[in-house]
Amino acid sequence: MRVVRFELLTLGDELLLGLTANGHLTFIGAQLGRRGVMLARNVTITDEADAIAAQFSESWARSDVVITTGGLGPTCDDRTREAVAAVLGQKLVRNESTVQHMLERFARLGRKMTDNNLKQADCFERGEVLPNANGTAPGLWVEQDGKILVMLPGPPNELQPMFTDQVIPRLAQRGLLTAREAYVQVRTSGVGESALETRLQPVFDRFGDALSIAFCAHAGHVDCRVSSPSGRLSDEALQGIAAECAGMLGEDFVCYGHDSLSKVCADLLRGQEKTLALAETATGGLLANAFTDISGASKFFAGGCVCYSNESKMQLLDVPECLLAQHGAVSAENAVAMATGAAEKLGADYAMAITGFAGPCGGTKENPVGTIYIALHAPHGMWSKKLNYPGPRQTVKQRAVNAALDWLRRELVRAANGTSLPAGRHGVMQ
Amino acid sequence: MRVVRFELLTLGDELLLGLTANGHLTFIGAQLGRRGVMLARNVTITDEADAIAAQFSESWARSDVVITTGGLGPTCDDRTREAVAAVLGQKLVRNESTVQHMLERFARLGRKMTDNNLKQADCFERGEVLPNANGTAPGLWVEQDGKILVMLPGPPNELQPMFTDQVIPRLAQRGLLTAREAYVQVRTSGVGESALETRLQPVFDRFGDALSIAFCAHAGHVDCRVSSPSGRLSDEALQGIAAECAGMLGEDFVCYGHDSLSKVCADLLRGQEKTLALAETATGGLLANAFTDISGASKFFAGGCVCYSNESKMQLLDVPECLLAQHGAVSAENAVAMATGAAEKLGADYAMAITGFAGPCGGTKENPVGTIYIALHAPHGMWSKKLNYPGPRQTVKQRAVNAALDWLRRELVRAANGTSLPAGRHGVMQ
Repeated sequence: MRVVRFELLTLGDELLLGLTANGHLTFIGAQLGRRGVMLARNVTITDEADAIAAQFSESWARSDVVITTGGLGPTCDDRTREAVAAVLGQKLVRNESTVQHMLERFARLGRKMTDNNLKQADCFERGEVLPNANGTAPGLWVEQDGKILVMLPGPPNELQPMFTDQVIPRLAQRGLLTAREAYVQVRTSGVGESALETRLQPVFDRFGDALSIAFCAHAGHVDCRVSSPSGRLSDEALQGIAAECAGMLGEDFVCYGHDSLSKVCADLLRGQEKTLALAETATGGLLANAFTDISGASKFFAGGCVCYSNESKMQLLDVPECLLAQHGAVSAENAVAMATGAAEKLGADYAMAITGFAGPCGGTKENPVGTIYIALHAPHGMWSKKLNYPGPRQTVKQRAVNAALDWLRRELVRAANGTSLPAGRHGVMQ
Repeated sequence: MRVVRFELLTLGDELLLGLTANGHLTFIGAQLGRRGVMLARNVTITDEADAIAAQFSESWARSDVVITTGGLGPTCDDRTREAVAAVLGQKLVRNESTVQHMLERFARLGRKMTDNNLKQADCFERGEVLPNANGTAPGLWVEQDGKILVMLPGPPNELQPMFTDQVIPRLAQRGLLTAREAYVQVRTSGVGESALETRLQPVFDRFGDALSIAFCAHAGHVDCRVSSPSGRLSDEALQGIAAECAGMLGEDFVCYGHDSLSKVCADLLRGQEKTLALAETATGGLLANAFTDISGASKFFAGGCVCYSNESKMQLLDVPECLLAQHGAVSAENAVAMATGAAEKLGADYAMAITGFAGPCGGTKENPVGTIYIALHAPHGMWSKKLNYPGPRQTVKQRAVNAALDWLRRELVRAANGTSLPAGRHGVMQ
């Protein structure tokens, strides 16, 4: 099978200046990866016309498919169309149906279309227009020199549906995509990258260089991907290897594929017909947000409180004033009281509470910045843990949320297996 | 002044497969951008040794400074060190102080160091080691052929402090950085990109091609950057131009620079010594999270509730059962009741509530998926707005949060200026 080389060109000073994350790489890379294609390369360059022409010329020469993003908009720093047309030796011609679409769009929004918008209707004389359902600048599709060029507008809400609804079907039609992922992924938690490799090595050793292995450490989990670029191992063989890894990892195995920890917890809760309530201080809603990102969350998620002030802990969760006076808000006692309050007020089976000092200010000698207490209230008991995370505020928040999610996940797995934590009250786990 | 060309090489299949966002580009791009340098290019390629060698060779030839990230770790897919050494014609030698550091680190964590870790101590024979305070693999610094090579480990919590604490000072010492940003940024909201350009064009026209202008549309705001790459306009002149733009935009001007909408609201609340409470359904904690990302949030943020079930709305916020029965949870009435409940329960001056259908399931004929009601409770009255956002669940959540933040920002600006909304109760703004 001939290897088809895909290259992604992401354009924009704002990417190089770190003002916008390169979400197009993440989105397009994942869309293609799920269909058996890995991008060969992604190049990000400036908005400057000469740089675009030089880079496009190079990318076009070495690739079968080039995808560009950005620089199709209405303002003076949008120069991609002209630069690429020069390299392809194509003329740009104003596309009247696109002008019409833009006029209608502005009219619908009750806004006057300024003249600088018109250049967005300039399309290649030999090429197709990909209509933009969510914005003004259309995408462009060109087949020339036995290669394919796809040009997409920069705003994600315009690019993403255009890519899935128009580009993916066209690529599939030309036989450039397969039906499935190029790899099988095993998601784990609680094990470092090097220790994970060592644990799984005995499995991998049996397959020699027919098997390709890659590890990727994320905040809160480590992924292991197995693939066979040479095609010597079948899909079924790869799935068997992944299953063997999962079996060896026990509770440290999270899932196959890409589900988040919150999605895995949500599925376990739904499977056991249990509900969840949350109470947060330090993580300030980030844990609740992880659950409410899941469609249909109302099936298992009762609600949550973000209790910054002591008053809010008393008012919303009935945390006793004397407990806060005696132990302070950053304490195992308060974490347990918040979890209990959330479970009772919201009538939930499980509840998790997080309190702590996310920093950079705050903290005490006993509980310095980065200290996090997590409490878990389950039908059969309740427990708390004390943790400490270094790093900036948002890192501490994210790590605390990951720790809470992983704890809940393990407890739900044990509940499903009948191997729950021993019943107890106010047990403290370090 | 000679232009110094910086190129960033980000390595890893996980980036090309869209499994991890390219946060290194965002971080390093912003760090350099704030010091007067814009990356000339970022190239992301696969973990494969030949591809790394070929790309590094090309990047090294055309650049003054090359920064690589990733592929320095302990597992079999970490191959950057060897590939780069071959291109530079350098030998790798095991660095004993790094081995010692790794052994100590593993001992401190109570873990056994597996043998695959040792290769992380292999360093260039002619080069410096950048110690890794937060992990095992050190960074590497090489000066050769009048150029600089910086190699950084992939995990962000290791890379980021290494970059700010060790790489930035070394680059500054060699005169490659300046003290300030290469541009002045005006952040706006409520105006589209093309309309913004049209409004500001009269200002820009006066400066001709001495002034370079770029626009960048984000979810919730549009940024306009003014710069003078030729150096013909001074920093003071650029600041004057930005101030003139800000003046023309009135309330649509958010801030100079990079502050988030929540940070701007937080500063306004602190400046006016007011407090804020929140109540969310559809956005599920995302709004609370935006405020609690701000250090010292407890100064102005009383707390918030994420009320998914009707019971939680009644229990936590005293929303009357009859109101929910009559109008439903997705209604202006409930939004206002939730905001009022939050303000009263939490004793806050301002409160915002968001309810709606984030989708993809749910929705009614009158209130289809994407319908969002926002209520604002202020010391002098309360109002609600009905909005509708297309798109996937997380987009709807983010847009609703942005709309709430921008509404609060405008009301706080008006309060500061004595031009608040007319006093009222249950006013509905479409």
